[in-house]
Amino acid sequence: MAQKPGIPKGTRDFSPAEIAKRTYIFDIIKKQFKLFGFQPIETPSFENSETLMGKYGEEGDRLIFKILNSGDYLSKISDEMYDSKDSTKIATHISEKALRYDLTVPFARYVVMHQNDITFPFKRYQIQPVWRADRPQKGRFREFFQCDADVVGSQSLWQEVEFIQLYDAVFKELGLQGVTVKMNNRKILSGLAEVIGAQDKLIDFTVALDKLDKIGAEGVKNEMLSKGISEEAIEKVQPLFSFTGDNSEKLGKLKLMLADSSIGMQGIQELEFIVSAIDTLGLLQASLEIDVTLARGLNYYTGAIFEVAAPKNVAMGSIGGGGRYDDLTGIFGLKDVSGVGISFGLDRIYLVLEELGLFPENVNENIEVLCINFGEVEAMASMKMVTSLRALGIRAELYPDTAKMKKQMSYADRKGIPMVLMIGENEINENTFVLKKMIDGSQNTYEISDLSKVFGK
Amino acid sequence: MAQKPGIPKGTRDFSPAEIAKRTYIFDIIKKQFKLFGFQPIETPSFENSETLMGKYGEEGDRLIFKILNSGDYLSKISDEMYDSKDSTKIATHISEKALRYDLTVPFARYVVMHQNDITFPFKRYQIQPVWRADRPQKGRFREFFQCDADVVGSQSLWQEVEFIQLYDAVFKELGLQGVTVKMNNRKILSGLAEVIGAQDKLIDFTVALDKLDKIGAEGVKNEMLSKGISEEAIEKVQPLFSFTGDNSEKLGKLKLMLADSSIGMQGIQELEFIVSAIDTLGLLQASLEIDVTLARGLNYYTGAIFEVAAPKNVAMGSIGGGGRYDDLTGIFGLKDVSGVGISFGLDRIYLVLEELGLFPENVNENIEVLCINFGEVEAMASMKMVTSLRALGIRAELYPDTAKMKKQMSYADRKGIPMVLMIGENEINENTFVLKKMIDGSQNTYEISDLSKVFGK
Repeated sequence: MAQKPGIPKGTRDFSPAEIAKRTYIFDIIKKQFKLFGFQPIETPSFENSETLMGKYGEEGDRLIFKILNSGDYLSKISDEMYDSKDSTKIATHISEKALRYDLTVPFARYVVMHQNDITFPFKRYQIQPVWRADRPQKGRFREFFQCDADVVGSQSLWQEVEFIQLYDAVFKELGLQGVTVKMNNRKILSGLAEVIGAQDKLIDFTVALDKLDKIGAEGVKNEMLSKGISEEAIEKVQPLFSFTGDNSEKLGKLKLMLADSSIGMQGIQELEFIVSAIDTLGLLQASLEIDVTLARGLNYYTGAIFEVAAPKNVAMGSIGGGGRYDDLTGIFGLKDVSGVGISFGLDRIYLVLEELGLFPENVNENIEVLCINFGEVEAMASMKMVTSLRALGIRAELYPDTAKMKKQMSYADRKGIPMVLMIGENEINENTFVLKKMIDGSQNTYEISDLSKVFGK
Repeated sequence: MAQKPGIPKGTRDFSPAEIAKRTYIFDIIKKQFKLFGFQPIETPSFENSETLMGKYGEEGDRLIFKILNSGDYLSKISDEMYDSKDSTKIATHISEKALRYDLTVPFARYVVMHQNDITFPFKRYQIQPVWRADRPQKGRFREFFQCDADVVGSQSLWQEVEFIQLYDAVFKELGLQGVTVKMNNRKILSGLAEVIGAQDKLIDFTVALDKLDKIGAEGVKNEMLSKGISEEAIEKVQPLFSFTGDNSEKLGKLKLMLADSSIGMQGIQELEFIVSAIDTLGLLQASLEIDVTLARGLNYYTGAIFEVAAPKNVAMGSIGGGGRYDDLTGIFGLKDVSGVGISFGLDRIYLVLEELGLFPENVNENIEVLCINFGEVEAMASMKMVTSLRALGIRAELYPDTAKMKKQMSYADRKGIPMVLMIGENEINENTFVLKKMIDGSQNTYEISDLSKVFGK
């Protein structure tokens, strides 16, 4: 009995048309990565479990795909352990390897392992799949590509400047207008926490603040109060409730609020440097916007925090993000190596380009010429043409069977092949070929010796 | 306590230099795949276990990496089953997914699942990693890329002809001379088995015959006798013991031996068609050689069998292989779909190119210009240059910190960056920049307005 084929939930097959579009995005990102001096690395799909476990919090540990040991994996478990039937405890004994959960931890591991071969600052990019045992839903997959660029080994803020330029360059080349690079700084958030005297309530604070657009200033204040943030504290950051204006106006308001917080003022200085450099250098198409509600990866980032918003006319969350993290490699024994990096959200960028019709028409590298197969002798003559066309760099093929003309034409039609080349008995005798354009059915006869000329080569 | 980082045995990190070389090979293969009309697909890294299990024999099943179910995976096992502590049986209950073992079975599954969206004959290529729990050794990894092209849905022998041309085109473009495409046909082997009256001894027979070069005719005959192949049978295939000459001489000898075997004669006809077509069309650089000892994937292939031998001056096994298999998709419920395909052995091709020094010098897409960082004001002037250079398509970067000149030059040196661009106070005042060539230390001063001219853009 034949199996009914399926694939695991949360995973995807990609068709040629989908691959063509994904490759289009990847190629532009890679091209810009290289122009900006990033070099590719790749790490194994699975790591030793201890490399990954404990790096992403308890929830993360649960979502890591574990690989069952080979052989008689149960034989090494003590009876006592086995009798517990404790899935979590036993997992650590029957699984030594786990699938990559992100590209950041493997990168940190890579830097530490290869530190003697690396010239710092080290600018690397990495585009590989990661796996998460998340509940699949629209736009969330169990296997998806991450697309990261990071620099380690320098604290220079020029790198933050470069990453904003990099986002700008990529989205410009993708033809995506109206992209906003939002920027915050962990030190601003720490300063605000200092000012409101509630460092432990920082997350509640930013979550509430983030709802300003939706529930208004009163709503936000009520939520803050309900979370135990005092009225007095809220008063101190009053300007945040009408935090409008351009970046320099926002910086001005922040300076007033954070005057007494040295860490806050440091954050402001960093933002000022970056904003001013970008003002001087200019952006091609994107805009840069200070957003103090931005708190992604709060426990992780120590300086800049970035998030890229899709154009406002598309209902899509962030299409990229990143930030600076000190001591990324400390967990693996290499101290005081500062890192900063960004990532591109491939799947969402794909959806945005699709929705806006921004994929080029010729993104599909389809066959350009189909040679019709009229029989053994004619097929040989056609195969010579196919061979010559390929040598000219033209994607060509012979229909493999001597099928009815209608079937062969329908193949060309269904595959969207623009030209059909025919060599029958007459053409063999006269050293000619017939070229038919599928778009209008027009056809012409040419000398075989003119082949390269006909194709403009 | 920091963890000492490592990676699972049989897996690899790839450095930028290694990726550059691997990408060089992949790009040439992909380019030729496309010229020949193959289109890319991708399938998930893991499949449902039932898709993979039982497809690669008992040994294969053992070598498939299984993924542990998420959550309380032990809770669903009956006490009776659990008490058996039988690793193999319990594995099927605690693991529903497994890592891809090759690209062929997932491809068959893909074709069946998407048969209504596919135009047949379907020519697909697929370049993705696969995983095998094999004992790692030199040149054998637990994670490695496969690189396959297959056609399904036609029995035309033109496809075999095309695959030989495809091998030839790829190795020609890689600059690899002296490649031999060896070809056999399963029907020839069946014919020989018929003739020697020992179909069950076909593997023993071909294994022995394959040693002809090493142990001579007498050695081979003795081995055959020891395997229970009769002296009479060996007599009937006497010509195989001096199976020299060109392809047409070999075909002549085979015709004499296999005259009474209809399946054998069918195999000869197929070989003849392919050899004659290749003779007519010509190959660029490779040679095609009939090799009746070729028996790879014997239980799998039903027609043509290919194997590509590296140039004789390199000690390396096969660098590619493939063949025709009828009814690939039958296991998933789609009958009578013939397929034929080949694969490229990436890791071995890499080693061959490395050994022969065939990688181009500029394969590494390294930074072309490093801009020296002399301080905040100068850095801004340099950053403008960097931005302009990138817009011209030149890979450029600013050294991120105002480090000592020596340190910055040493960075350029260690990274092999060919040019260093300097803008100090004088240059800012004079609207100029200094460009230094690292190869000979020569340097010149240019007007900033001449930037694109200086870089030939």
